[in-house]
Amino acid sequence: MEEVKGFVRRVLLFKFKAKTAPDHVKKLIKDYSNLVNLVESLKTWHMGKDASIENLHEGFTHVFELTFEDAEGIAAYMVHPAHLKFHERISPHLEKIVVIDYKPTSFHT
Amino acid sequence: MEEVKGFVRRVLLFKFKAKTAPDHVKKLIKDYSNLVNLVESLKTWHMGKDASIENLHEGFTHVFELTFEDAEGIAAYMVHPAHLKFHERISPHLEKIVVIDYKPTSFHT
Repeated sequence: MEEVKGFVRRVLLFKFKAKTAPDHVKKLIKDYSNLVNLVESLKTWHMGKDASIENLHEGFTHVFELTFEDAEGIAAYMVHPAHLKFHERISPHLEKIVVIDYKPTSFHT
Repeated sequence: MEEVKGFVRRVLLFKFKAKTAPDHVKKLIKDYSNLVNLVESLKTWHMGKDASIENLHEGFTHVFELTFEDAEGIAAYMVHPAHLKFHERISPHLEKIVVIDYKPTSFHT
């Protein structure tokens, strides 16, 4: 197993509250994506809506993938004013959330 | 928002049972990675261990990222004998699991 050098990934699963209007969800996601322009240590940002064909997604509706150069980059993001402000705005709209950080590795055979 | 063409991603979060020996976890993960050599529709396979600095990972210990060309590729993978055999071997060792499929998109500003 070989480490893919040079980045740490954060995956987030969100379930938005049913009472949050779809247009407001879209606006929040647009603002979320804009953090890549505001926070130096945030290198890439991707998202996707649940499209599961099994029923093992535990009700989560959205996936977000963020990449950083290293763990220090995540720490810097966590306390960045733009992230803190966004966090305060989105939190009331989330029914549940999982956040996990990891250094992706793969097997080369 | 623009769709990244040409692939569907599956993210899985696993929490292995405490009673499963670390060496057996390693073996299972190695066998898991080998599916990329056995299942035509499985295009990439990466994994990472939890390295969270927040405590929002809900006890999940491992992340897996698989990519497929399309949803049909996932469906083909689901019923592939190599996957079914692996699924049968790993299931008794998992305390909990989340599986979510999505087409990654990103904002280009």
